[in-house]
Amino acid sequence: MREFNQQRVTQAVIERLGSCDDPRFKRIMTALVTHLHDFVREVNLTEAEWLTAIGFLTDVGKTCTDQRQEFILLSDTLGVSVLVITLNHPAEAGNAESTVLGPFYWEGAPELPRGSNLAIAVKGEPTFYSGRVLDPAGRPLENALLDIWSGDGEGNYDMQMPETGMKARGRIRTDGEGRYWFRSIRPTFYPVPTDGPVGRMLRSMGRHPYRPGHIHMIVSAPGYASVTTHLFVADSPYLDSDAVFGVKESLVAQFERHPPGIGPNGERMDTPFYTVNHDFRLRPAGAAAPTDASS
Amino acid sequence: MREFNQQRVTQAVIERLGSCDDPRFKRIMTALVTHLHDFVREVNLTEAEWLTAIGFLTDVGKTCTDQRQEFILLSDTLGVSVLVITLNHPAEAGNAESTVLGPFYWEGAPELPRGSNLAIAVKGEPTFYSGRVLDPAGRPLENALLDIWSGDGEGNYDMQMPETGMKARGRIRTDGEGRYWFRSIRPTFYPVPTDGPVGRMLRSMGRHPYRPGHIHMIVSAPGYASVTTHLFVADSPYLDSDAVFGVKESLVAQFERHPPGIGPNGERMDTPFYTVNHDFRLRPAGAAAPTDASS
Repeated sequence: MREFNQQRVTQAVIERLGSCDDPRFKRIMTALVTHLHDFVREVNLTEAEWLTAIGFLTDVGKTCTDQRQEFILLSDTLGVSVLVITLNHPAEAGNAESTVLGPFYWEGAPELPRGSNLAIAVKGEPTFYSGRVLDPAGRPLENALLDIWSGDGEGNYDMQMPETGMKARGRIRTDGEGRYWFRSIRPTFYPVPTDGPVGRMLRSMGRHPYRPGHIHMIVSAPGYASVTTHLFVADSPYLDSDAVFGVKESLVAQFERHPPGIGPNGERMDTPFYTVNHDFRLRPAGAAAPTDASS
Repeated sequence: MREFNQQRVTQAVIERLGSCDDPRFKRIMTALVTHLHDFVREVNLTEAEWLTAIGFLTDVGKTCTDQRQEFILLSDTLGVSVLVITLNHPAEAGNAESTVLGPFYWEGAPELPRGSNLAIAVKGEPTFYSGRVLDPAGRPLENALLDIWSGDGEGNYDMQMPETGMKARGRIRTDGEGRYWFRSIRPTFYPVPTDGPVGRMLRSMGRHPYRPGHIHMIVSAPGYASVTTHLFVADSPYLDSDAVFGVKESLVAQFERHPPGIGPNGERMDTPFYTVNHDFRLRPAGAAAPTDASS
């Protein structure tokens, strides 16, 4: 086929997959080409707009470093990340819901004893976190692992600050009753990085770049499906307009404020502090999540 | 809206464009988000596949340099470039058709006298190009400019070779009768760059990376719409399966082979040589191309 017009070219690209020996890849590329071409036709994309898109994507790629993933940020801010997560982890009554990983996960945070302070020399209001990791029947899961990270009380992650090293990160295991507890800070709202191409895109879209305050956790236990999630601070600004669409009601937690005094660990607190309690239920690994199109 | 499921999140992203003050950008982003989310839902994209896509796009960005545009190559090989071009330059009876710019355009090629040899010290079979630039009524356009580039007779562009400088490039103007003529080589088929992520994608798709032999030209004249196009070598392999879907019948030209002897410029040729003659008709600038959905 030599004579491609604006309809036939799509079919021509798809036909070129005739020798693809990976049926899944073939299906994905067929759907991708179809939607990409439909998009171009639907908006009648001009050549100048196409070149702007090429320049934008190139700039997104150039902005990626070992410590910054601008394509994930793009996916996050266009709602693609949370869509993928929601497709793969549909809400199940009572079980912990998943949300975006975000760009600041740093593998290899230290495993610390229960009760540790993850936020030594980190700005922010002291907060004592506690709760349990349970199976779907509510039985405690011993030795479950919480891989925890957050920004500081001013919204800055360690990865955004030069030569800080790991801060406000740690891994904590549950005890024989499924309990975890640790100290950190109360996370505040913060902007996603706005000094790159995605920041410019958000400004052009008329959008703010803020995420409501949240602490990240990957909760896992042997034999159970691990869950990448957040706890959101219940009274945080931007809960209704998270820049990456990550908020789910079941992940919004009450942070209870206490005056200076004795903390739950018996420590003398000279400033006000917070406590928050949240349980996570995990489903057995391999038990397929329900594919509920209405979820 | 806080509770996003796999359908509502799309609407949530679109609603976030409520403060966008650029109606065209708003329309483009609305359509983009709709199609992107539809694609993800249609194939039920897994998290591993999403991460592969993020890694691929990042790699495409990292592969871009001043002399290599891997995102344009990606657009070309998925048929997006030729779709955009065909939408913006629909075929018009008799007028020169457009095709892809490709990744090897190098702005600022030297303007040379008519009859110049663009391919001094360039490998390949000598070819004498000639023809006219005309208006839609067939009247000659004086002082029209042809910005010409091609690979060599082995399919390599100067930009792909280290420290070569410009080769097989030049700008030639038409004379008072709209005529142009110059010498270069007969281009051969060649692979698009396959050592990067797009090359890996093509292999996974089961596709070859070859383009049929062609010479690039941007043809322009004061007061007329310029045309970015190719002349394809009529008997080249891959005319029916151009890796970037750029072939149009009206751009396929006969390269006539001649035994050693006297070239059309009076020069003594010790080897066989070729001649090719092709006219380009330009439409007046500002005369909107017909929006013919069936073209």
